[in-house]
Amino acid sequence: MSSPKRPGRRKADGPAAETPLPACSPIVIERVSPALDGGLYPVKRLAGSRCEVEATVFRDGHAVLIAVVRWRRAGRKGWSSAPLAPANPGLDLWRGSFPLDEPGRYRFLIEAWTDRYGSWLADLRKRVEGGQPDVRSEALEGMELLREGLGKAAGVHRTVVETALAALDGAGTPAAALAAASGGGVPALLACLGPGPDASCSAELEVAADRPLACCGAWYEMFPRSQGSVPGKSGTFLDAEARLPDLQAMGFDVVYLPPIHPIGRTARKGRNNSLACGREDPGSPWAIGNEAGGHTAVEPSLGTLADFDRFAAAARSRSMEVALDLALQCSPDHPWVEEHPAWFQRRPDGSIKYAENPPKKYQDIYPLDFSTADRSGLWREMLRVVRFWIGHGVRIFRVDNPHTKPLPFWRWLIGETQAEDPGVIFLAEAFTRPPMMHALAKAGFTQSYTYFTWRHTKRELTDYALELADGPGRDYFRPNFFANTPDILPPILQTGGPPAFRLRLVLAATLSPSYGIYSGFELCENAALPGREEYLDSEKYEIKPRDWDRPGNIKDLVAAVNRIRRENPALRELSNVRFLPADNENILFFSKSAADGSNTLLIAVNLDPSRPQACTVAVPADLPGLPRGSFAVKDLLDGQVYRWGERNYVRLDPAVRPAHILRVEG
Amino acid sequence: MSSPKRPGRRKADGPAAETPLPACSPIVIERVSPALDGGLYPVKRLAGSRCEVEATVFRDGHAVLIAVVRWRRAGRKGWSSAPLAPANPGLDLWRGSFPLDEPGRYRFLIEAWTDRYGSWLADLRKRVEGGQPDVRSEALEGMELLREGLGKAAGVHRTVVETALAALDGAGTPAAALAAASGGGVPALLACLGPGPDASCSAELEVAADRPLACCGAWYEMFPRSQGSVPGKSGTFLDAEARLPDLQAMGFDVVYLPPIHPIGRTARKGRNNSLACGREDPGSPWAIGNEAGGHTAVEPSLGTLADFDRFAAAARSRSMEVALDLALQCSPDHPWVEEHPAWFQRRPDGSIKYAENPPKKYQDIYPLDFSTADRSGLWREMLRVVRFWIGHGVRIFRVDNPHTKPLPFWRWLIGETQAEDPGVIFLAEAFTRPPMMHALAKAGFTQSYTYFTWRHTKRELTDYALELADGPGRDYFRPNFFANTPDILPPILQTGGPPAFRLRLVLAATLSPSYGIYSGFELCENAALPGREEYLDSEKYEIKPRDWDRPGNIKDLVAAVNRIRRENPALRELSNVRFLPADNENILFFSKSAADGSNTLLIAVNLDPSRPQACTVAVPADLPGLPRGSFAVKDLLDGQVYRWGERNYVRLDPAVRPAHILRVEG
Repeated sequence: MSSPKRPGRRKADGPAAETPLPACSPIVIERVSPALDGGLYPVKRLAGSRCEVEATVFRDGHAVLIAVVRWRRAGRKGWSSAPLAPANPGLDLWRGSFPLDEPGRYRFLIEAWTDRYGSWLADLRKRVEGGQPDVRSEALEGMELLREGLGKAAGVHRTVVETALAALDGAGTPAAALAAASGGGVPALLACLGPGPDASCSAELEVAADRPLACCGAWYEMFPRSQGSVPGKSGTFLDAEARLPDLQAMGFDVVYLPPIHPIGRTARKGRNNSLACGREDPGSPWAIGNEAGGHTAVEPSLGTLADFDRFAAAARSRSMEVALDLALQCSPDHPWVEEHPAWFQRRPDGSIKYAENPPKKYQDIYPLDFSTADRSGLWREMLRVVRFWIGHGVRIFRVDNPHTKPLPFWRWLIGETQAEDPGVIFLAEAFTRPPMMHALAKAGFTQSYTYFTWRHTKRELTDYALELADGPGRDYFRPNFFANTPDILPPILQTGGPPAFRLRLVLAATLSPSYGIYSGFELCENAALPGREEYLDSEKYEIKPRDWDRPGNIKDLVAAVNRIRRENPALRELSNVRFLPADNENILFFSKSAADGSNTLLIAVNLDPSRPQACTVAVPADLPGLPRGSFAVKDLLDGQVYRWGERNYVRLDPAVRPAHILRVEG
Repeated sequence: MSSPKRPGRRKADGPAAETPLPACSPIVIERVSPALDGGLYPVKRLAGSRCEVEATVFRDGHAVLIAVVRWRRAGRKGWSSAPLAPANPGLDLWRGSFPLDEPGRYRFLIEAWTDRYGSWLADLRKRVEGGQPDVRSEALEGMELLREGLGKAAGVHRTVVETALAALDGAGTPAAALAAASGGGVPALLACLGPGPDASCSAELEVAADRPLACCGAWYEMFPRSQGSVPGKSGTFLDAEARLPDLQAMGFDVVYLPPIHPIGRTARKGRNNSLACGREDPGSPWAIGNEAGGHTAVEPSLGTLADFDRFAAAARSRSMEVALDLALQCSPDHPWVEEHPAWFQRRPDGSIKYAENPPKKYQDIYPLDFSTADRSGLWREMLRVVRFWIGHGVRIFRVDNPHTKPLPFWRWLIGETQAEDPGVIFLAEAFTRPPMMHALAKAGFTQSYTYFTWRHTKRELTDYALELADGPGRDYFRPNFFANTPDILPPILQTGGPPAFRLRLVLAATLSPSYGIYSGFELCENAALPGREEYLDSEKYEIKPRDWDRPGNIKDLVAAVNRIRRENPALRELSNVRFLPADNENILFFSKSAADGSNTLLIAVNLDPSRPQACTVAVPADLPGLPRGSFAVKDLLDGQVYRWGERNYVRLDPAVRPAHILRVEG
């Protein structure tokens, strides 16, 4: 084989003095975690917790190393640091942690260097323990290292080093030398004097620490215009305010409103998405903008901006937060259409293109062109909209169809927003292929809609929950299990009656720390367009006041489940789910347990809404918090207490109860 | 919660015009493979093969994308490119490949952009198939794209575009427009006109393509000084040359020599590593250097450099290559000690430190100080040594204890060497913790010694082989299974007699494409120091001529196994191993099969050297190359043919045969 020569690179056999040697720390720092795509995106954590870090750190030879984690909150000056400890020396694995005291972005890195004094001391110990009769030469080397340390130490630390130095100098035997060198805390002190000359750093990695509601919450979605009581007449923010006690009683944390902005008139859709629109038809709230304003205005029939402010304040006073819909699109009547003609794509005849996904057409909606020549103007206006609502007390945005807008836009918008208030939550309403779902979460979305409505069987639920709990997304993809939405009435709810609503509620609320229902779920509304997942007479196109207490509602169950969620920390985590054996394909059996064993739940759900199912379920002995032998479990839904053991009989009649939510009693 | 404000960052609700928007390609390219630590290190492949690449590529919305792989050989100008094809559209997965025509480093990246014409055409197709009655407006858009393409196209391509343009212009019906737009190869042509304005690139990644011997070879290690016939008298390169026919007959590819340089006299070790050295004791070849020279000289008792050249040429003429030991350390008598006093660490009294791993002492060896102030001089001299031997035809180096020298040094040395001749092979003799073993492979070592000598049970062998075949190292860590070394005589060989040698030979030679034995293995030499893995009367400290044909040797088996390796491509791959059920813990049963089914081996080894073992083994129906129903297998060791099916009885008597190496007959 011919060996290609680079001309001029090599000169006979003489030294090749041309290229400088590479910079050279002998220390390798690898597999730092948590890390997402090599630090390109932040991993997500809960503010108030500690970020556990881990790294593989090693170098050539037998020297002793020191490794630390250094961290800094975004926007703050100066790095803090804490030592890592060897966790598995055989694998060169080190562990440590740092505090995420408040919400915000944190940067961290691992630094490591050779502990020269520690290495010398470890050698000395082996020599002395190996019986080396004379360590005077070694002692001289140690004294040299101590003198170096003296140059860096200050105050009382100087005394410690000076004492060791004198003792080592005067040591008459190897054992005395070892005692002098290792006593008085001098090894730890020298180790703390800062990085040695061969220090190596990992890349900087990022952590986003979020407030609790970002990680866990029960959401209720409602159209304010349907909160009145007169058929055909728009409800108002005042009516919506009147519903808040009801929502509070059910135990919700977030009340999410579809768009509240003025609704376009051009090509307005009629009932059931009809192209023919009646005089009284209110149109889709997602067709945003008319002569009354656009994304920073409110639909006049709902009231005024002041009414909205009052509604939001009332929600806060009842420990709930308002989430607004962020749907970045326009009706043909939106002010932006005149003010910013360059923000819209046009046909060859000069007319603006309405939204299409051929062959589907959405004549009442103009998409914004995010790659417009006036990208800067468009993007900054979107940021202004978000800031406007933040100014009105909104700190949660449910983002409509984010997967049809460029990812760099979201990364920028969310980054700019959270740089000012890291507590602002963005929920991505993307139902698309997995890579885009994940990319949105990486780009900064706090939470994500999921495939939950399409996961029904034991296998589907198990696989999906484990993928979310243990898959690569566990560090950044936070699911929000909505059991229904105005766009999705899944077949099981259409055909399963109230038992189906009950079982899906329990699954959503216990498998995911964040979950939600769209109003009407608690009434078991289930009329669909034939053969579709779309609601019949969808509220998207009409005003639908209801009797929110009508017979057949499952509000008591909703309230009970939300109470159980609040009282049991195990339900506020995602990754602590463990699926357990149940010898019936219709019974899903799983545990949720706090790592410290303080709270362990055993949950059995009958997935069949039509008939009773029974089986034997197995409880493994290694579950955190499980007493030895038999133990008491209390059903938190009805207060009944059972004596359980390794194997237990379970029977669930959907007419009576959807599930057991059993707490292991201490 | 208080929201920390960055002063001066935001101005009321007005547009925040301060910071420029980020650069913005909407296209995401993720999970590009092969990639090692994000491109920091090259993955390893075989020259002459194609590098299969894969990436997840997507963007917002529904546009059609084009993705390509671009590659370039190191030192060559200009990039080549080839299209990727969608491999799993539901996961946005794309695949392709590029050729690794010759050994060397290659860089590649994935580039993707929006196919604007393709996207327009896909929309048009949906419109036409959806029955849209008038597509004249859409046709005008398509014509605009065609005109743009015309600006970039040349020669015959212009005609294709012009024809499509005219046809689209004249199309009277939607169907005609679709036919005009999609015909004549115009979509593919426009897709090939190069990256669109929204193109996005992955990071550049690296592949090292190696010559076949880097991936697969049978190694024989011998001390040339033991190749003579007179006890106590050093053999020479001439004697070693006389052994070559024997090695060729056994089927070896590489003959590896421990250091051939002058051996130090100061503190020279006597027999069995004794501190007392007799007049005739030749010393350890790893104590390199005396008045006759250092790393670029040869020990005078072996002959001259010309004799070495002749030996190496003779090996080449017999289809073998010589591997030299690269032990970067000195005897106290090495010329470098005087010439480069700064290259050695000193005690406080000014004396040079000999090698120690307390409490062990190696008084005959001075380590080099790789962090010396004269780092540049030291490193470049090491490179000069390597180049010197390359100048004498050596292209394989077995590197002694690389884990005691800095990783950046190896990366530099191997990089500089392979930039001139990518066919130079470096084998890392590191027996240490897994992270360093892997780091050396990442730093550039072509092959690595392994833990094979310490893996004996079915479970140990299975776990280890699968870790190497399927673990993270599969892209860069190439094992070389040595069955013994001058430092390692494992207990099973000490106690198991010839059957143990036979079974370990078959395991090494069939589980790993590269394997080796140290001379004496074929004679079943097994005398050890009591309670240690060290040979009694180790050849490291004395001259040991033998009768290489003495009774009890297993040279026929060695020859047979190496012949089988040459004749069966399935044994030249690492990752094609599959462990199969055998209901006896003492019988290891596995398959090795070429992916195309052209070569399938079934290998059963009795792990118990002391008694016959029998069991039923199961052959799964989905093995590549397996005929339906029953099939013939031929034992390549003895030529016997058996009729096999799904389950088969196997009995292996260690006194008769160590293993079946069965080839599935077509």
